[in-house]
Order: sequence, then C-alpha cells, then structure tokens
Amino acid sequence: MSGRGRILVANRGEIAVRVVRACHAAGHEAVAVYSDADKNARWVELADEAVHIGGSPAAKSYLNTDAILEAAKYSEVDAVHPGYGFLSENAAFARAVTAAGFTFVGPPPEVIELMGDKASARTAATAAGVPVVPGSRPVADTADALRVAEEIGYPILVKAAAGGGGRGIRPVRDRAQLEEVFAGACAEAQSAFGDGTAYLERALPGARHVEVQLLADEHGGMVHLFERDCSVQRRRQKLLEEAPAPELPESTRRELGEAARLLGNHVGYRNAGTVEFLVAPDGEFYFIEMNTRVQVEHPITEAITGVDLVAEQLRVAEGQRLSLSQESVSHRGAAVELRINAEDPDNDFTPTPGEITAFDQPGGPGVRVDTALTRGDRISPFYDSLIAKLVCWGADRNQAYARAGQALREFRIEGVASTIPLHRRLVEDPELLAGPVHTTWLEERS
Amino acid sequence: MSGRGRILVANRGEIAVRVVRACHAAGHEAVAVYSDADKNARWVELADEAVHIGGSPAAKSYLNTDAILEAAKYSEVDAVHPGYGFLSENAAFARAVTAAGFTFVGPPPEVIELMGDKASARTAATAAGVPVVPGSRPVADTADALRVAEEIGYPILVKAAAGGGGRGIRPVRDRAQLEEVFAGACAEAQSAFGDGTAYLERALPGARHVEVQLLADEHGGMVHLFERDCSVQRRRQKLLEEAPAPELPESTRRELGEAARLLGNHVGYRNAGTVEFLVAPDGEFYFIEMNTRVQVEHPITEAITGVDLVAEQLRVAEGQRLSLSQESVSHRGAAVELRINAEDPDNDFTPTPGEITAFDQPGGPGVRVDTALTRGDRISPFYDSLIAKLVCWGADRNQAYARAGQALREFRIEGVASTIPLHRRLVEDPELLAGPVHTTWLEERS
Repeated sequence: MSGRGRILVANRGEIAVRVVRACHAAGHEAVAVYSDADKNARWVELADEAVHIGGSPAAKSYLNTDAILEAAKYSEVDAVHPGYGFLSENAAFARAVTAAGFTFVGPPPEVIELMGDKASARTAATAAGVPVVPGSRPVADTADALRVAEEIGYPILVKAAAGGGGRGIRPVRDRAQLEEVFAGACAEAQSAFGDGTAYLERALPGARHVEVQLLADEHGGMVHLFERDCSVQRRRQKLLEEAPAPELPESTRRELGEAARLLGNHVGYRNAGTVEFLVAPDGEFYFIEMNTRVQVEHPITEAITGVDLVAEQLRVAEGQRLSLSQESVSHRGAAVELRINAEDPDNDFTPTPGEITAFDQPGGPGVRVDTALTRGDRISPFYDSLIAKLVCWGADRNQAYARAGQALREFRIEGVASTIPLHRRLVEDPELLAGPVHTTWLEERS
Repeated sequence: MSGRGRILVANRGEIAVRVVRACHAAGHEAVAVYSDADKNARWVELADEAVHIGGSPAAKSYLNTDAILEAAKYSEVDAVHPGYGFLSENAAFARAVTAAGFTFVGPPPEVIELMGDKASARTAATAAGVPVVPGSRPVADTADALRVAEEIGYPILVKAAAGGGGRGIRPVRDRAQLEEVFAGACAEAQSAFGDGTAYLERALPGARHVEVQLLADEHGGMVHLFERDCSVQRRRQKLLEEAPAPELPESTRRELGEAARLLGNHVGYRNAGTVEFLVAPDGEFYFIEMNTRVQVEHPITEAITGVDLVAEQLRVAEGQRLSLSQESVSHRGAAVELRINAEDPDNDFTPTPGEITAFDQPGGPGVRVDTALTRGDRISPFYDSLIAKLVCWGADRNQAYARAGQALREFRIEGVASTIPLHRRLVEDPELLAGPVHTTWLEERS
C-alpha cells in the first residue's frame, strides 16, 4: 500500500464510519462490509465500495473470518482495519489476513496473542519492569486458590484468564467467600470463554482506572499520548471517560507514560494500543491489561493532543514513520466522552432496540459526535447498543463538562430510550466535578 | 451581572444558537427573541425563555430597538448580546441598551461610532501608527476626486463612507472611468446607506484579506488571537476562511497582531473585535476596517487557539479580566470554515428558500457544525441564506482541507439547493491547496 491504497473496514457502527473518514482524509479508498441488518447503514453509504458478508448475527458476518477475507479478495484491498471488538484482538484473524497477502492494521499476531492472555500479559509486564497488581499464576483448584490468596492478601478478585473488557471478574472479600465461589467461577469462565483457567489478583479499593495511549511504528518510533481516566463505570463497563486524568500528579503522568512505553518496547509493539492501569489511592499504579487495537474512547486523546489516531494507524500499517515524536506531543485542555447507549437507565439499562424517529445532533465549539446513525435508522438487537459517542473538549475540565451538559440538552433522540438522562445527571454531579472518582463510585452510590 | 446572569440574545440563526450555548456553558441563562417567521426556531427552543418581538421583516423585529429593549425589560435580563449583523454595530442601539440599564456585550458606543465611519476609522488607524491603504479624506465632487486620484495613483476604489462588509465599493482603473462613474457612485451610496459621502483608496491588485482577532477587557488586558485569511470571496462576500493565513511570514504575523493591538489601545477598545487588513503581494499590509462585534468566521480562531471567543465576550461584559494573556495564547494546526448557503451556485447564487427535507450532519475528529437548522425547518426569504458553518480543524492545512472534503461528502441537505457543490470543488482546488490566493482569485477564474 503506497500512496493511494484501498482499505477494508472489517467492522460496523460508529467505528466503521470513523475508519472510512480516516481513509478518505488520508487519500485512501475505503471498502465497507455489512450484514443483512446493516444493508442501508451509514458506513456502507460513505464507503467507496461495500460488500455483503452474511446474516445479521455477528457469528455469520462480523465474526466470520472467511467471509471477511473473501470480501477483501473480491474488492482487491491492500489492508484490513479491524476496528474494535469483533475480530480486532483475534490473533488467528490477524494471521489469516496476513497469510492472504493483506496488511493487518494492528500489531503483529504474536503480540495480540501475548497480550490477549491475561497471565502471559502480566508476565510480560513484570519482565518489562512494569508493576502489576499483586496476584498469581493460574491457580489449579480451590485449595491452591486459598493458599495463594493468603500470600496476596484479601480482598481479592478471581479473574478468568480468557476474560477481558470487564467480563469474567468476581470480587471476593475473605477466605470463606473464596472457598464458596472459586469452583463456580471457573465453571462460569469455562462456559463463557471456553477456558476455565482463573487467577487471583489483589483488589484495590478506591483505585482509578487510568489508561495510556501508545503508538508505535516499525522504525523504532514509540510514543505515548498521555492518559485517559475511565473510572466512571457500571458493571465494569465504561460510561464516561476523560483526558487528562483529573488531579493526577505530573510525576505519575510521566511514570505511567514511561511504563507504557517500556512494555511496548519489551513486546515489540506496533500500531495503536492501550495500556490499562489501576492507580491506587496512595498513588501507586499497577498494570491490568493491554488492548491491542483502537479504543472506543480514543477521541478524547485526539481532542487534547490534536493527533488523529486512526490516521496514524494507517501510516504505520503502510510502513511509514509516525508523524510525531514524544517531544512533539503535547496536551491542551480537557475532554470528556459520553457513551450514549440505546438502553433505559430507569429500567436496569435494558437495551431498547427500535427505530430512531428524531435525531438532532448538538454542535458548536469543542463538540464532536461520532455516530453511524441518523433519523429513520433502526437500532438492531443483534449488536451493541451504542447510539453515539459525544466528545466535548474545553480549555479546562470545567468548560469541557459545561459544554457536555449543554450538548446533552441539545441532543434529541426519539423513538428509543437512551442513557442521555443518566449522562445529564453525571456531568452535573458535584462529586464527579469535584475531582477524581474510583471505579466503583457509581455503583456504590446508586 | 455577577455569577449567574441572564442574557438577552438580540439576534437569530446560528449566531443566536452560538450565544445561547456560550451562556449555558458559562452558567448564565439565555433569553431568546424571535420574529413571526422564527417561532419554532432552534435558538428559541434552546433558550431558557423566549420573547416574540415582531413581524418577519427584520425592520419589525431584529432591527427594532424598541421591541428588543421591551423584551429585555420584560424578561429582566442583565445584558444584551447583539451577535453579528442587525444592530450589532449600531452605536445608537448600544447607547439605548446601556441607557436602559443593561450591559451591552460589545465595545463602548463611541468606539462603535468611530470605527463605523470608514473615514474616522482610517484617521484613528493613522494616529495609532497603523498603515492604511493610500487614500483620501471624503471627496466633494468629481473634480475633487480626479485631483485626489492623481496623488493616490490608479487603479483606485471609490468607497462609500457608510458602506461595509464589501458593499458600496466601485473599482476604477483610470481617469476616464473615474470621471464617468464618480457622481453615480455617490448617488448610489446615498440611496443604499442614506449617506452619499465617498472617499478614494488605492486598489491593491493581488492583495489578500487578512484579519486579526482582538479581545480586550476593562482592566487593560488586550490580546490578539492571530489572524484569519478570508481571501476566497465572491462579490466581496466571504465564502471560505482559514486560520492561520497560509504562508504568511512569521514576522508579518507578529506585525499584524501588534498593529491590531496598537489600534485597539488607541481607541480604547473593549470586548471582541476584528481588525481587517489587506496584505499586498510585496508583504506590506494596510488597515481596511474594524468590525466591532463577533465575526461570522470566529470559529476558525477558536479551533486553532482553543479560546472560546463568545465566553470571553461574556466575561469582559461582566467586568472580569480576560482568561488569557498574550503570552498564554498559542495556535495549533489549521482550520477552515465553509459558509454553506441556501443558494444555487449553478444559477448565479440565487437564494433558494424552502423546507429542509433531509439534514444529516458530518462528524468525527476536527469537525464542527454551527447551525440553527434541522430537518423540517424552513429557510426564510426574510433573512440571510446561511444554512450552516462547517469548520474543520487539522494538525496541518492539508489535513484540515482533507477533513473538510470528507465532511462535505457526508453533509446531506435536501429540499433546498446549497453551495455544497461549490465548496466541494473549492476544497479540492489545486491552486487554493497550493498556497495563498488573493481576494479576486475566485471571480477571475470563473
């Protein structure tokens, strides 16, 4: 792929639109894929070509490696961008893409594999000199778990090695509870992920979720783009993210960025990736996991740094150098992202598929909306319930939140219930506005 | 107005929406006004209160000082923001607002008056040490004009003293033409502006229109926020603006900023204002006029500096200091604004009022849309034909233009013809992309 290339966007929804935009802005052509349910979707319309890849269930389309490779061959693309979710962190998919002669817009398959397994990722972090949450190798059975837990100290978390994105995690407060739940947790992991392996980790009450954005090229260029605070969560799903992390000491910011680069260098990282940490109330930080793809919340990093992360992904995949160096990256102001979902916050966040009968976007200074939807579109029950990401930048954190409040007042979505009412409460919440909150803050108060 | 205030937005359209947003983001309440035609308008819906001020013709509503003051009294506001156009540069209006006990969000009336008359503005600039286009005092008659023109040198412009915004200007190439047209030009000025006074100015073929954004408070704070290049014009109306001015030498940028501050200081400027210059091909620059209000194209300055100009206007009007100093202001990347009008570019830009039957906004990184319209709204024949301002920021000029191209592909407006096809050609125009163009570039080639 030199000069004008053709890129298959192996995803759907807002991230497919995002990648099409980046392709066009960089002078490339974009080829979309779509399932039955997505025939008239926005990314299909915006792409230069679109290929139908199968039925509505993701297993028949967006998770179907063969169908996606067929589409890539048929449309004669140079590269495949996997987006996030679906096959984006599937090493076998990355290998198949490469074996078929296409460039995979992401890290090498072996790095995806290494980081995809929580235990091997921890081992790599430790070897790179990056602190990990006090925890264990995979534990064999309840007796083993009880022994190991004594060394780590309670409270602990039982984590499925094959879990991720907040799934497959069970908090345990003491020995009695561990004895009671361990076997069941392994059985659940087996049924959910096809792998019953579990390990233990120290729970860190009051810790914040802080993650560092990395970019790396194949010429030794490796930069971090500062951090995002994603502590506002519900059932370990991120609801609101912000950059930079509020009230993070400058020394911690620097150390986090350095730790992320150490790990990236150690594993031979390429392309965009995110290194997730927990920052404990005492300021100590611990590696949790690395996501080897573009992140849902990447726009807040773009807002404060001015760097187009997807454009950099495409550059790196082409074999070019990053357009930036660590010295040239700076951050300005503050940004907050709200994930607006088609879920009813007053009804236990039940998904609310259906037709969007009105859709008026907010606008004005500092306001960015990433969405694949417009009036008349249907939210499909087959996929996630994300309607739009609302990203608001301000010269400082207060202005970012104030603009988010105004943008939420303006955002009119009718036909389906959405999480806008929850977000309106959040951006005016005195505790959240006063300073950093921790990952269980939202659940503890509701 | 201390702390939470109430502000009357004495305008309509996208700038009314813009001011409501700024009020809310700063914690103030916003009171809208509307004419018959604007009963269901977006700014009416977004404001905390709205007052009907009269019939659809602007003379009965948005130009009706009494009706606006009545609305201000009725809704018990603290201040009046005039937006741009309408009464924004009317010193009598500013005086009436102040006399009625409200804060006028703008400079003192005497400064509006001084700058509103082109001749006194030139005199002020010269007194401040700012170069003006070689030109004259008001000339009395054709004989006087011919004499003065010899001193200035042809080609010249005959300008109505009461004109502005590109209106009331007649280019003249030589003595014979001046003799032929002068009396007619004065008669036209009399009928268009109620004032037949004219003066002469040297025409500067190949010059660029470059303007500097000023902000000033009542505590001696005065900063410039760099410049905008508005050379892409049709019949002296700006179609596309960008910041910073491409390929402007850093020394010229500094000198322009300094000249704007000199003038601002000399006249005791307060609040936001724009000092317009012509920059000749030889690099010399000349003051043209000062606009004593927020400018249509202010968002491109916001995009490169991160400063919210309307928020600063409100701060200053409250008697606060600016939130910035000259040293703290910097610019990053490049931004371009496209004025999307309801006009048919294939039919001599005839306005195309009517109902908007589809309206899908572009989005993604660096894309800002300022509009008061949505699907189902009508473009009224009573007012200007602006549909939306599309503002695209990029890490460099190429990225800004590339994003603008993509955003224009995405922007779907149906029901009325718009200037989008013209803008799509513009943002891909090799001459425009290659470097700076001058103010008659667009007309000379079409």
